[in-house]
Amino acid sequence: MLTSFKKNIETNFSFLKGKKLLIACSGGLDSVVLTHLLKSLNFEIALAHCNFSLRGKESDGDEMFVIGLANNLEISVFAETFDTKKFAKEHKVSTQMAARTLRYNWFEEILNDFKYDYLLTAHHLDDDLETFFINLSRGTGLNGLTGIPKENNKIIRPLLNFSRAEILQYAEKNNLKWREDSSNQKADYLRNKLRLQVLPQFKETNESLLNNFQKTQRNLQSSQNLIEDYMALVYNLVVSEASDSYKINVQKIKELPHTEALLYELLNGFGFTEWEDVSNLMDAQTGKQIFSKTHQLLKNRDELVLTEISDVNTSEEFLVSKDGITSPINLKIEPSKYIGETEKNLIYVDSEKLNFPLKLRKWSSGDTFQPFGMKGKKKLSKFFKDEKIPLNEKDKIWLLLSDEKIVWIIGHRMDDSFKVNENTEKILKITYSN
Amino acid sequence: MLTSFKKNIETNFSFLKGKKLLIACSGGLDSVVLTHLLKSLNFEIALAHCNFSLRGKESDGDEMFVIGLANNLEISVFAETFDTKKFAKEHKVSTQMAARTLRYNWFEEILNDFKYDYLLTAHHLDDDLETFFINLSRGTGLNGLTGIPKENNKIIRPLLNFSRAEILQYAEKNNLKWREDSSNQKADYLRNKLRLQVLPQFKETNESLLNNFQKTQRNLQSSQNLIEDYMALVYNLVVSEASDSYKINVQKIKELPHTEALLYELLNGFGFTEWEDVSNLMDAQTGKQIFSKTHQLLKNRDELVLTEISDVNTSEEFLVSKDGITSPINLKIEPSKYIGETEKNLIYVDSEKLNFPLKLRKWSSGDTFQPFGMKGKKKLSKFFKDEKIPLNEKDKIWLLLSDEKIVWIIGHRMDDSFKVNENTEKILKITYSN
Repeated sequence: MLTSFKKNIETNFSFLKGKKLLIACSGGLDSVVLTHLLKSLNFEIALAHCNFSLRGKESDGDEMFVIGLANNLEISVFAETFDTKKFAKEHKVSTQMAARTLRYNWFEEILNDFKYDYLLTAHHLDDDLETFFINLSRGTGLNGLTGIPKENNKIIRPLLNFSRAEILQYAEKNNLKWREDSSNQKADYLRNKLRLQVLPQFKETNESLLNNFQKTQRNLQSSQNLIEDYMALVYNLVVSEASDSYKINVQKIKELPHTEALLYELLNGFGFTEWEDVSNLMDAQTGKQIFSKTHQLLKNRDELVLTEISDVNTSEEFLVSKDGITSPINLKIEPSKYIGETEKNLIYVDSEKLNFPLKLRKWSSGDTFQPFGMKGKKKLSKFFKDEKIPLNEKDKIWLLLSDEKIVWIIGHRMDDSFKVNENTEKILKITYSN
Repeated sequence: MLTSFKKNIETNFSFLKGKKLLIACSGGLDSVVLTHLLKSLNFEIALAHCNFSLRGKESDGDEMFVIGLANNLEISVFAETFDTKKFAKEHKVSTQMAARTLRYNWFEEILNDFKYDYLLTAHHLDDDLETFFINLSRGTGLNGLTGIPKENNKIIRPLLNFSRAEILQYAEKNNLKWREDSSNQKADYLRNKLRLQVLPQFKETNESLLNNFQKTQRNLQSSQNLIEDYMALVYNLVVSEASDSYKINVQKIKELPHTEALLYELLNGFGFTEWEDVSNLMDAQTGKQIFSKTHQLLKNRDELVLTEISDVNTSEEFLVSKDGITSPINLKIEPSKYIGETEKNLIYVDSEKLNFPLKLRKWSSGDTFQPFGMKGKKKLSKFFKDEKIPLNEKDKIWLLLSDEKIVWIIGHRMDDSFKVNENTEKILKITYSN
């Protein structure tokens, strides 16, 4: 397997050469094999292990194992313990989702702080097949059948061409040790049902099943690519962008074949589920509208106008004390003796211009501010448009306010009137981490 | 189920109202239920049953059962016995393929001869799911996952929305009788492995599995539609049609994203399998070419030129006696006292102008003839282009010749010089049935 792994790296991941690689290592079979393979090829690697505290002593044992593995191989190791259950409860998400969020946020921190170039995960072909079947079981579309991406920004999955059987064979041949995760045996009902019952039977139907599946996935990915190319053309033809909305020309989209499928492709991702209602809106009277949780779609003359629902965003407000706030987002406020450079997630302000407690809320369509370094006021909707912030990103943005005046569009731009100047006596440093 | 079946007919198949319907009826559960459902809705139906002589007495029992069913319901019935094994041997195809060919040819005959409007088959949702998995097992693309079509010309499948369980329930509730096909239990290894082992397990993963699967199929069909729409645009942009070839402009197709996927979509269906070679041809020197069994793809300056391989077509010749010929195609030759109308598959010729034995062969690129009713000669390649016969249809066309002169482009047009005129003393009627 080392030979074919090496060839796979040279063919598909040649850009990894000479880079600093961080391996997400649970201590299980797959990530241990990935670690050994990359070590054998003399890559500069380090391990990162998340202890989710979900399986007590077993979790701690995994952590110790990974640290031991790193020591044996004489490579760096990062290990962090999370209170996953607490995080899940606080953010009202499933344990699985919480673990996922914690994991990837932490990995990103390490990449940034320690200057690693890529994160490598050990997903393999059987994982891919399972994911295909999970999506199929729940009902899906082309997108749900094209598989786990080999490359996704800084996340690289170099084992996706290899089966679990190949990986196991390599581990046994090289006398590798790894940890069995007892949760694999029970936690995820659907995945385990597929892994243990459905897929072993399905693999018996064809001895080249996994190969054929890889071909199928490549073909489906090609199809998906062609649809995206086509949709780029269609978008230019029928959509016009306004400051805080997208407008779909009904006349023009109706002239194209399979209008409803096009409408689905354009509006998919904005939370709509009743696609028949969406289609019917094309022929509705001006003023008729339908809503998803996040968006409004309005029939206006010959257009369908898509806008965010701002009311939802502004509904909740949080008070921010002099120490900052940790929920729903993490803001640290501290005195500073000097003024450093303002960054995306870090600003310096004149303490006396603020009136505590400050307020935290989502933006709404009427908001304006004076962007740092500029003279006049600007509507936030205009600012977002100029900054080319995608429609579906905008509702994730928080504002920090003092006496109803915007201090900071968090993560984007502070207001000019709060900046430090020659008269400032006390400086505050405000840091945002998500 | 009758209610939802009725609704399904009204919504999706309203055009069936008042039409004469032929039901493909094996005597098995599905087709018996379809028969009863349509009879209950007072459609004008008849049954057609193929006895493939593959299971001896059991086959004959099925036939008797279907005839009995028709008599009970007081509807017409057509039954025909085929020597499937012999046909398979003669045409060098699998028994399954032979049965399929015999079946659909015979159905078409009945539709034509007895003026039925549509053929209805009893394929249901579980058949659809099995087909999806069969294709997945063998490796496929989007096309192989979009499912059995509900409508395909004159073939209608009104049970595709219903599961096997629903159909069985209806049959039991209404005390229907049907024949169990013992071959279901063994003949088709892959389908049965899926039906009996893989899919029952898979269905346990989600109680709405079949519903979700229907949604998935609709989504995939939409995706397929969009790709076809896109490819129509791309075709106009990069392909030019010559008299006997298609030319793909390399420069233009390379300017489009995902060139290789486009090339695949354009050339898929012409027998090529080495897609890397096809892609490489874009950058090859003029004169370089690759072949499939039926086609040649030639790099010529800035074009890829697709032509049929004519040599393959003309390689075999068959002698045709005064009685006609039954292999490789079926031509009947008989004296006629009168001259009827010339049809696609039927011509009348002047017997004395023919010199037996006649000859049968595929067309080649140099062939010319004088189309019936025209003065001058015409190249066959030009004729096919004018008649808009698709490239991949052309190599199925046979010629009937007398002394190396074309008498008939079988199924398309006869030569003017063999036609019956006022001096004709003996008329021959030549009939083609495929």
